[in-house]
Amino acid sequence: MHNWLLPEYIEDMLPAQALRFERVRRQLLDWFYGCGYQLVVPPLLEYLPSLLSGTGRDMDLKTFKVVDQLSGHLMGLRADITPQAARIDSHLLNRQGVVRLCYAGSVLHAMPDGQMQTREPLQIGAELFGHGGIESDVEIQLLMIKSLQLAGVGSVQLDLGHVAIFHSLVEHASVSPELELELFQAMQGKDIPGLAELTASLDEVSREALRVLPQLYGGVETLAAAQRHLPDYPEIGKALDDLRTIGSQVQDGVHQLCFDLAELRGYHYHSGVVFAAYASGWANAVALGGRYDKVGKTFGRSRPATGFSMDLRAVLGAQSTPPLPKAILAPYVQDPELQDKITLLRVQGEVVVVDLPGHEISREELNYDRVLVQGEVGWAVVKV
Amino acid sequence: MHNWLLPEYIEDMLPAQALRFERVRRQLLDWFYGCGYQLVVPPLLEYLPSLLSGTGRDMDLKTFKVVDQLSGHLMGLRADITPQAARIDSHLLNRQGVVRLCYAGSVLHAMPDGQMQTREPLQIGAELFGHGGIESDVEIQLLMIKSLQLAGVGSVQLDLGHVAIFHSLVEHASVSPELELELFQAMQGKDIPGLAELTASLDEVSREALRVLPQLYGGVETLAAAQRHLPDYPEIGKALDDLRTIGSQVQDGVHQLCFDLAELRGYHYHSGVVFAAYASGWANAVALGGRYDKVGKTFGRSRPATGFSMDLRAVLGAQSTPPLPKAILAPYVQDPELQDKITLLRVQGEVVVVDLPGHEISREELNYDRVLVQGEVGWAVVKV
Repeated sequence: MHNWLLPEYIEDMLPAQALRFERVRRQLLDWFYGCGYQLVVPPLLEYLPSLLSGTGRDMDLKTFKVVDQLSGHLMGLRADITPQAARIDSHLLNRQGVVRLCYAGSVLHAMPDGQMQTREPLQIGAELFGHGGIESDVEIQLLMIKSLQLAGVGSVQLDLGHVAIFHSLVEHASVSPELELELFQAMQGKDIPGLAELTASLDEVSREALRVLPQLYGGVETLAAAQRHLPDYPEIGKALDDLRTIGSQVQDGVHQLCFDLAELRGYHYHSGVVFAAYASGWANAVALGGRYDKVGKTFGRSRPATGFSMDLRAVLGAQSTPPLPKAILAPYVQDPELQDKITLLRVQGEVVVVDLPGHEISREELNYDRVLVQGEVGWAVVKV
Repeated sequence: MHNWLLPEYIEDMLPAQALRFERVRRQLLDWFYGCGYQLVVPPLLEYLPSLLSGTGRDMDLKTFKVVDQLSGHLMGLRADITPQAARIDSHLLNRQGVVRLCYAGSVLHAMPDGQMQTREPLQIGAELFGHGGIESDVEIQLLMIKSLQLAGVGSVQLDLGHVAIFHSLVEHASVSPELELELFQAMQGKDIPGLAELTASLDEVSREALRVLPQLYGGVETLAAAQRHLPDYPEIGKALDDLRTIGSQVQDGVHQLCFDLAELRGYHYHSGVVFAAYASGWANAVALGGRYDKVGKTFGRSRPATGFSMDLRAVLGAQSTPPLPKAILAPYVQDPELQDKITLLRVQGEVVVVDLPGHEISREELNYDRVLVQGEVGWAVVKV
């Protein structure tokens, strides 16, 4: 094995790509900052129970484990920053009202999510804690749409779902936890024959409702269809009302708005509205989010929460990368006036590379299109 | 164990600290960019042989290991970004001439270096490949000094050493690899009795030279003393000349310049001039660097290399953190004119937080000192 070989689904980011990444990262964090989302930098490594609190088995399988030589306990490498933000909100900041946090950092996955996925997503996102109303769901979704625009993803399809609908149906049907898990998996996979089989023993109302759920997908008319086909439970009525209101407030920002009432992503984690953004050119969702009011409780304080995040590596990886800007070449001369001129140009945002002695033959690799030359009135930048 | 407890020597960075960190990170990366150092983002995780190539046993003990479920091979979490930059230079970029790279990212250490150290340093640094002359050593040291200024470390003591001196002495003394290691450890610890014992069986010239080396510490007069007390080997003469020239070119930027001829940090890794910056308020070096011409070879292409890096967490952690800037509070009103005003303020760099309904009692937590109010001529910012 060559020692420069990287593991599968692990990559370097080389200069042109890294510059683009850094610029978009800054634009997003600046926008989050302006909206009152305060940056936090949680650690890469935590004790396993903290990392996996309230997140379910998926996250456990995704998490690399190492033994802490100082305590003997198992630690995990974070596979998701959202629960870390929830921990910071509920335990460290300890505010009563609304808390807005954002972050940008690498997470690691022991296995890739799919063929085209990385094991080191660069997760960037924003979370809003302490507000249970749909106003915060709308704020987060609009922030996600704006973030995607800043990251070069213009024309977005937004899918909205609500885990309370499925949750209400299984609760009324009084199914066992095992059956609930099977129903959840069949629902996620839109496995119609599987659902027919799993619901066969349920009461008629529950059976029909669970069987129709995967078909409740489409425009705003889906909500009316859901009202007709689903039982008249108050939680379902409220979920449909919420989806209608949220949809009306975010639809102007997106190319297409879809309702998907069988979308249950992160069911053990999410508790209300969930959403995903899709765009042409990307096989998977470009950004994801939703409400997860239960997670804070595992850190000792129950707090409403909603947020979104995206993998900036995936979002930018599917776009073309602009070439690096051309530099100005400065000769290797010990002249204070030249030094001042170089400093000035750099402060103005130019790249000035010094032509270190002895490398004249490989000078063209330095990617420059101008040079500093000494004229009668001092050092000047001249095109080559 | 509470599930919000972090492992020892692992910390969150909370908003005020994270903002300061982000700002300094950007200032440094912008300055590197202006000097022609191109950003790279190597992965957190690599196969172990790549990570440990040419780095010695210290790095092995520091590196967390995990098994790659896809290949069965051992992977390590990077404990240092420098060898990754060397791998990118020698294998991926494959240029013949000078390559300047920079990076900023977390590294992980299985054990802390000391009582006050973190296990997740935020390593930021710059590396210059392909140039073996002292001009590049000077460029890197001046870049380090400038970086420390940008990071708020004003008055720096710069220690310069050169591993070729010790290397030349042990080579001429023909010592065994085991004795070389013991001598290295005694030298690093400035263990005078230990050195006396270890050198007892050597020829007189080598014995006296190795015993005097730990005392060769101080201002520029140290170099003259070294010329008097050390044998007249050409490598030693060249090393002393290089140190004198480098010192004369960097001394204006530092508060104090010291030569420390027993400084061998990273002896198995470094090959020429090594340097460390100290400042009052920090127990350990605030930044470190040196020449490591041998590392590229382990990736298949021998390339001269010099660079520096610092732990931004340590550098900023010892300074006071400015409070977060105050925000502007915007009422929750659906008015396009208000939305336009909010967007404008955010683009101008202000923080505008929306007062989501239902949280009037905890409003003061939002850290604002101005509000948006509707006047006769539209929305205006008013002090409170």
